[in-house]
Amino acid sequence: MHFFSDNATPVCPPVMAAIAAADRADHGYDGDAWSARVDAAFSALFETDAKALWVASGTAANSIALATLCPPYGGIMAHEQAHIVVDECGAPGFFTHGATLMTLPGEGAKLTPDVVAARLATIGSGVHHSPARALSITQASEYGRAYTPGEVAALGDLTRAHGIGFHMDGARFANAVAHLGCAPADVTWRAGVDALSFGCVKNGGMIGEALVFFGPHAAARVAEAKRWRKRSGHLFSKGRYLAAQLLAMVEGDLWLANARAANAAAQALAAAIPARLLHPVEANELFVRLTAAEAARLRTQGFDFYDWGKGAARLVTNWSQDAADVAPLAAALAVLDP
Amino acid sequence: MHFFSDNATPVCPPVMAAIAAADRADHGYDGDAWSARVDAAFSALFETDAKALWVASGTAANSIALATLCPPYGGIMAHEQAHIVVDECGAPGFFTHGATLMTLPGEGAKLTPDVVAARLATIGSGVHHSPARALSITQASEYGRAYTPGEVAALGDLTRAHGIGFHMDGARFANAVAHLGCAPADVTWRAGVDALSFGCVKNGGMIGEALVFFGPHAAARVAEAKRWRKRSGHLFSKGRYLAAQLLAMVEGDLWLANARAANAAAQALAAAIPARLLHPVEANELFVRLTAAEAARLRTQGFDFYDWGKGAARLVTNWSQDAADVAPLAAALAVLDP
Amino acid sequence: MHFFSDNATPVCPPVMAAIAAADRADHGYDGDAWSARVDAAFSALFETDAKALWVASGTAANSIALATLCPPYGGIMAHEQAHIVVDECGAPGFFTHGATLMTLPGEGAKLTPDVVAARLATIGSGVHHSPARALSITQASEYGRAYTPGEVAALGDLTRAHGIGFHMDGARFANAVAHLGCAPADVTWRAGVDALSFGCVKNGGMIGEALVFFGPHAAARVAEAKRWRKRSGHLFSKGRYLAAQLLAMVEGDLWLANARAANAAAQALAAAIPARLLHPVEANELFVRLTAAEAARLRTQGFDFYDWGKGAARLVTNWSQDAADVAPLAAALAVLDP
Amino acid sequence: MHFFSDNATPVCPPVMAAIAAADRADHGYDGDAWSARVDAAFSALFETDAKALWVASGTAANSIALATLCPPYGGIMAHEQAHIVVDECGAPGFFTHGATLMTLPGEGAKLTPDVVAARLATIGSGVHHSPARALSITQASEYGRAYTPGEVAALGDLTRAHGIGFHMDGARFANAVAHLGCAPADVTWRAGVDALSFGCVKNGGMIGEALVFFGPHAAARVAEAKRWRKRSGHLFSKGRYLAAQLLAMVEGDLWLANARAANAAAQALAAAIPARLLHPVEANELFVRLTAAEAARLRTQGFDFYDWGKGAARLVTNWSQDAADVAPLAAALAVLDP
Repeated sequence: MHFFSDNATPVCPPVMAAIAAADRADHGYDGDAWSARVDAAFSALFETDAKALWVASGTAANSIALATLCPPYGGIMAHEQAHIVVDECGAPGFFTHGATLMTLPGEGAKLTPDVVAARLATIGSGVHHSPARALSITQASEYGRAYTPGEVAALGDLTRAHGIGFHMDGARFANAVAHLGCAPADVTWRAGVDALSFGCVKNGGMIGEALVFFGPHAAARVAEAKRWRKRSGHLFSKGRYLAAQLLAMVEGDLWLANARAANAAAQALAAAIPARLLHPVEANELFVRLTAAEAARLRTQGFDFYDWGKGAARLVTNWSQDAADVAPLAAALAVLDP
Repeated sequence: MHFFSDNATPVCPPVMAAIAAADRADHGYDGDAWSARVDAAFSALFETDAKALWVASGTAANSIALATLCPPYGGIMAHEQAHIVVDECGAPGFFTHGATLMTLPGEGAKLTPDVVAARLATIGSGVHHSPARALSITQASEYGRAYTPGEVAALGDLTRAHGIGFHMDGARFANAVAHLGCAPADVTWRAGVDALSFGCVKNGGMIGEALVFFGPHAAARVAEAKRWRKRSGHLFSKGRYLAAQLLAMVEGDLWLANARAANAAAQALAAAIPARLLHPVEANELFVRLTAAEAARLRTQGFDFYDWGKGAARLVTNWSQDAADVAPLAAALAVLDP
Repeated sequence: MHFFSDNATPVCPPVMAAIAAADRADHGYDGDAWSARVDAAFSALFETDAKALWVASGTAANSIALATLCPPYGGIMAHEQAHIVVDECGAPGFFTHGATLMTLPGEGAKLTPDVVAARLATIGSGVHHSPARALSITQASEYGRAYTPGEVAALGDLTRAHGIGFHMDGARFANAVAHLGCAPADVTWRAGVDALSFGCVKNGGMIGEALVFFGPHAAARVAEAKRWRKRSGHLFSKGRYLAAQLLAMVEGDLWLANARAANAAAQALAAAIPARLLHPVEANELFVRLTAAEAARLRTQGFDFYDWGKGAARLVTNWSQDAADVAPLAAALAVLDP
Repeated sequence: MHFFSDNATPVCPPVMAAIAAADRADHGYDGDAWSARVDAAFSALFETDAKALWVASGTAANSIALATLCPPYGGIMAHEQAHIVVDECGAPGFFTHGATLMTLPGEGAKLTPDVVAARLATIGSGVHHSPARALSITQASEYGRAYTPGEVAALGDLTRAHGIGFHMDGARFANAVAHLGCAPADVTWRAGVDALSFGCVKNGGMIGEALVFFGPHAAARVAEAKRWRKRSGHLFSKGRYLAAQLLAMVEGDLWLANARAANAAAQALAAAIPARLLHPVEANELFVRLTAAEAARLRTQGFDFYDWGKGAARLVTNWSQDAADVAPLAAALAVLDP
């Protein structure tokens, strides 16, 4: 039974159904009837006039967002563990044409205004230093931590004060919102976020994430983003098959229902092993203390997951699971304890 | 009834079935069982040890191929009407970090050795001139013309003699091969082609094209290409859904059967209007003389297609059609003639 | 006696003197007293509020100018013989991060509004085509032809109408102005030019050209340009040695006096061989019919120059010459004639 | 009296004389007689077959070096205080097309094998992580510390073991060598360095640094570097004026004599204020404790220097000074002490 990644999970049935329903002739690229509904669907979800694009992957969503916020000579502040820093083979550098990643520390892979403000204070005003032009945070974070609306807003205030763009990598945005119980708007544009990578694939989609722009610059930025999307090979010939997936997710509450299921499974696991948790569980990921011997024992029982450095492991739940599904792992973990 | 693009066509049933069959848990990115079979499938099809990658779009396949063949300071020779020159918003410039497109003329959007050799002769050996490092041709060409094995080989000889990489944009490769009746190998590696963008989407796929490398440098180039793929956001989280489509196409002869159907429909149309043809029909596209009044009349009868400049139109057939499907358009066209 | 390039010429004495005068301690980069005067000097010369930067080379001036006018996904229209197209190893692609060079034909390496307008008409409004965002012309052209104020203004009107930036490569701007007898402003900002590469090195300087911005966007563009200058390694540690050269050129009329001398020498040569001229002589370059045998004969007499394709040669005069200096070559050429 | 930067210093007389001697007609770019001697001069200095290029600035030398060592998807390990990280507005990102700077800590702005090895151990072998492809160190470091031959060699061994390129930013290489008393080869190629930015401007030059390649890949790398040099606008039209400066520096021992003078001045200052030193003085820079009040008092006495954060200052000596020149500042500093 796999707990190594939500990427490993099949596509949820409503998304498969939506793809089948889109299997008709229509105009190519984003000229079809499904793509035409994407802006409205995300605007409704976020209770504002948003602009949204489908792209192939979270890496593309993140990088295109950053390219609209940061010039080549600028800097992007992000947590040193952020996916854009560690796991994308330098994609932000590619899309921004060489912008500098300004990496920052922070508990639970989260950034705080203090850390960000301190970094900003080191940057001179002349041409020798790259100016910070974007802040990127991950919701939920790389350690499965959720930023509260207040935490996001405090960072948002800082970006506004310094004229810096604010990006949120929401590969697991749904899980964070499900945990927080807030409106999606509360942790995005109401808190100052300019651009959101809205994850679908880990949450039951097949191919395609959404890149959502908010605020007064949204129209100008999405126009730029459409150029980057084309130029980077992400304007698919048959875009309706991506648009249909996004619509299936957000025209109803499928995105939230799937995330709630994954979160509930994570909480069920967490409840079984409170003493092993390295981070509070606020989404669908658990980081647990686990010796190599313990890990090996679990694997012989058929459980699969990623090692997370020495003496730890990452367990990821997903939309297809409920408490009963994770019960065998919970039981196996409980047995490990002395 | 639409004839504006093969992108507008639905996905063919075997590909939909393959996607459904891949809807199971497996490793993310390209770590799954389907992706593991891609090299073998294309090696069998091309009767050689090929390396193949799935990517999202033809633009991505073309650009990643060119990035492995041409350094930023190099030049890419291509027809002035080539898709990479005209229709990709500068994607080759993005992926190659600024390589120069050296555009060349040629009848039927095809290049000849004479034209290529003449361009090469203008390039000095010093650092002031960008050296040509890649030649890119389109099979079938932008005017639906097929390069014969001999024509490709003549260009291949030239690239070999000058140490230049040879790329083929095969968005409609299947249609060209179906027309030529040759082995896929005959118009690719046997004729000197180093990298092929193998089109699937126009030929009945949903999302995903293949990038295929041949020859002694294939392993090194595919290793580079994997970096570009990741870096450009084309390493999908659930790659098995792309791999499955490619395998459905090429593990059997679906790719060829679909192309033959599209070509046959094109020939049926062509037979009806020989005097209107601007180019010989060697794939699934017809370029026809058509006045604005004639075009308007056809459109009121429910036929859709692209205008092609002043006094001309492009008609594209596809895998889902046969002679009976195009008969109404053929009849309507015939009636137009005085 | 060399006629192969004005780059081959020594530095003129007033520039050497200015360098010597700048050989004092001052702040680094562009924080010195000389650099502080550059804006004012060029503003006076051009009778407007201009912004000017020193950079190392004409290639840098051209490319930085273009990077401020054209986004990576845009296109730069230029003559197919332009230095930026042929002789800079793709530098514009490097500085613009992959913008597309849209090459155009034209008599005497000059562009006309008709040719530019026709190219613009081919560009669709969607994301598939790169939008033209800059026009670059060379004054004097690669064949030594000068654009008149009216010719520049006609192109300027076109760029204004289409919202396109207008760049002038003025490697031999001084020679063109000396020939035209107009004010520098007449062939630049008054005619719609946004950015000028003002050449000094060929005209008697040692190292350093000026990049001059005009018009309402000048301040914003120069701010961007300063970033590119730093980022590309052109913000010299001891900028005062460059600034001093530019000031020596333009705070008086040295730039014009030097150009007049070179032009006069060119006219003296031209007068000797009217039947050999391939282009009217409007600056300091002569393109002349010359067989290989004739070229060889001249070289044995100690004259050096570049061959210009088959049966032609380029002769370049410079600031250090007068009619007497070129008399031996004129005589040798005259003797060649039957 | 200025101590803020060695960039502020005039050009030393032998370099001025060399420029004057080069003021003759010769071929443009690097086709002249001076440029032709550069390889030999640096080969002699380094006792090996080296390849050397002049470029405009240290930023250009560093970035071109890194572009030859690291692909766009790779990573460059460097100290978090390194000039390439902090002070070049992202130039390495520009020249490498987006390579990732992997910043590391270290006492005295120096890197140790332990820190480098620990970072390497975090990088996975798949395509998700950027592979480290270059290590860059600064000699002398940003805090004026010199790496001994043994220290460089220990890092060199690590780069060899991991197949990583090794770059040395030698903006103050001469000062480091003067301090160490070793052969230039001992802290470069004999210790594994592949590419050296050899500083001249801070050491008495006007414009122009050298980029020197060592080892079996030197010829291939310099060929690439020549393309980057041209493409970035650093192939000056009249290169002889740069070449002449470099030759003046290294064909004799001017480079070393100048550095020894600057170092001696620094030692004279250091001897006066041992208790204020924040770092050992091993080149021509002193980092000293200095309150704001003390700094203000020195400035009213006519001494100029940079503040270095809160409560500290940087004092830089140069080639034109001797112990007598710095005596007034030494005295003023001594008086400050209670």
